[in-house]
Amino acid sequence: LSTPVSAAAAVALGERGLIARIRARLPEAPPWLLVGPGDDAAVAAPERGALEILTTDALVEGVHFDWRFSSPPDVGWKALAVNVSDVASMGGAPRLALLSLAVPETLALDALDGMLDGFLAMAADARVAIAGGNITRSPGPLVVDVTVTGFVRPRRILTRAGARPGDAIYVTGEVGAAAAGLGWLAASARRAPALERADAVMSPRDPGERACIERYRRPEPRARIGALAGRNRAASACMDLSDGLADAITQIAAASGVGAVIEADALPIPAAAVRLFESSGVDPILAALAGGDDYELVFGVSRRMRGRFATVMRQARGVPLTQIGEFTRGGGVRLSRAGAEHPVPAGFVHF
Amino acid sequence: LSTPVSAAAAVALGERGLIARIRARLPEAPPWLLVGPGDDAAVAAPERGALEILTTDALVEGVHFDWRFSSPPDVGWKALAVNVSDVASMGGAPRLALLSLAVPETLALDALDGMLDGFLAMAADARVAIAGGNITRSPGPLVVDVTVTGFVRPRRILTRAGARPGDAIYVTGEVGAAAAGLGWLAASARRAPALERADAVMSPRDPGERACIERYRRPEPRARIGALAGRNRAASACMDLSDGLADAITQIAAASGVGAVIEADALPIPAAAVRLFESSGVDPILAALAGGDDYELVFGVSRRMRGRFATVMRQARGVPLTQIGEFTRGGGVRLSRAGAEHPVPAGFVHF
Repeated sequence: LSTPVSAAAAVALGERGLIARIRARLPEAPPWLLVGPGDDAAVAAPERGALEILTTDALVEGVHFDWRFSSPPDVGWKALAVNVSDVASMGGAPRLALLSLAVPETLALDALDGMLDGFLAMAADARVAIAGGNITRSPGPLVVDVTVTGFVRPRRILTRAGARPGDAIYVTGEVGAAAAGLGWLAASARRAPALERADAVMSPRDPGERACIERYRRPEPRARIGALAGRNRAASACMDLSDGLADAITQIAAASGVGAVIEADALPIPAAAVRLFESSGVDPILAALAGGDDYELVFGVSRRMRGRFATVMRQARGVPLTQIGEFTRGGGVRLSRAGAEHPVPAGFVHF
Repeated sequence: LSTPVSAAAAVALGERGLIARIRARLPEAPPWLLVGPGDDAAVAAPERGALEILTTDALVEGVHFDWRFSSPPDVGWKALAVNVSDVASMGGAPRLALLSLAVPETLALDALDGMLDGFLAMAADARVAIAGGNITRSPGPLVVDVTVTGFVRPRRILTRAGARPGDAIYVTGEVGAAAAGLGWLAASARRAPALERADAVMSPRDPGERACIERYRRPEPRARIGALAGRNRAASACMDLSDGLADAITQIAAASGVGAVIEADALPIPAAAVRLFESSGVDPILAALAGGDDYELVFGVSRRMRGRFATVMRQARGVPLTQIGEFTRGGGVRLSRAGAEHPVPAGFVHF
């Protein structure tokens, strides 16, 4: 990625120079971070009385993002957001992040700065402290590998394995938006093959369609709702929609030893996403089920949890929680549509 | 890396298949690992009364390793070892690891298996549990990114910043071995340009020289000695020799606001390394100071810590601890040699 502002390559600064540049931009460390970036390792005082959550996830240039579709701040934001989403889906609150970068020689210094801006914006949003990291040269793509830790009280963990027959299936926010946005970007790129980087003009005029693209570029992990559901013991199981709704429900069903029925009519697919899918001749229901990158949360909610789940819904600050089906006693994962049941398509897999 | 045993590419298994294959080979999880690999994130009960150490470090194909010089088990071993070394250099004990892999399409499945073998051998050695990780495709090099957490009691942390004028400088084991080994491998590769992968025959006959190559391929992090020094409050500062002895002492001196004198005659350079350096026309003292990859530990030891440090030396199980100089009141970092003092050369930097 070269930019008109500065074509100076980041690697010209060297490892030490880059670390110093990044450290200079970090906000003040919280008091529990006893040793922050700059030593051989970080040292943190644990959260009293809590269990620790740990997760790692990487974005690889050419696999998880494309410079034609995402700006450097988008990539930095998303690299942290996908990890925050994993912590939320365990019912916990995120706490600190480690950022490990493999930087190609062609990466411009201001692209690196922009990426850090996006990363720090997400960190501020999710109240995540940067504890440390690592930077190295890459002879290939940019790799942004992030580790996030969080905390959760004992007996408040939400795993994939707790769903029981009869539990209601709820999903946060909307599904299919990110896949519709990515579809629009890919179609636009096919029409403008000379395009080299994400540009402000590369956006549809319709605000709903723009929101789909924004969802793909900068997912909003449901950190608050995940932590609320954990704290209130309001869910029997939880997973995030990194690889799509069909995949998430299939994974929960397999880990819990249950089946599931998804109600097609109940899926909260935004109208703009329906239009985008239909304009490319794709069935919106199947596309929303299979499409990844939404980073919403899906929950199992038992009968006796419904009161507590209603409390979570009231405190969700405008994020809708929609019942979209039910876990069942076996029978696989099915889609109920127009009075008939069909097996759901396999989820979108990055690999 | 293709191998004669099997040319099947690892990516053919897919992300889920690879995760299942890796999980099947993991040893039983310790009881404090409440949720291990397979959910959105891992959940661990913290070590009671301890602070947490966190570090991340990546090995990138073509930057940190070369398939002509290292076998897949070597790479897996080293990817974990360099992180264990970082925890040890903070005075702590390692506890769990997260393994994040970006796998090129050409990587053979048995190369992936071999890498995991090496990783698990190091994990068993250092008593590290695998808590989780992530696997993705790479359109470029293999990237092995590892995060390790450990623990340390409060007021037992060894940072880089605690050295005071008059503190003795000690180093574990030997220095220069890994650099001498890598030098031999690089020279051999220049003589055999058709070489594609590390081979048993690509070893010198002399056992001392073979040991240098082994040190480069499979560094032994000083986990036990680092933890002992922390627990006994036997050191004022500590760092590992990932980027060489000159670099480590320069970093400690800068962080502590002191100078240092290194005694050339005191450096524990193995005789075989001296021979290898001399045979390529390199000054063994300067090469040992600048050479990276030894993963020994360097300590500052104050006068009142000497008794406690002697206890650490007695419990070091045959690993020598050698005094190689002293921190001073300013004056930069100097090498004392044949009665004269010289500024030390800059350390080896990976970037």
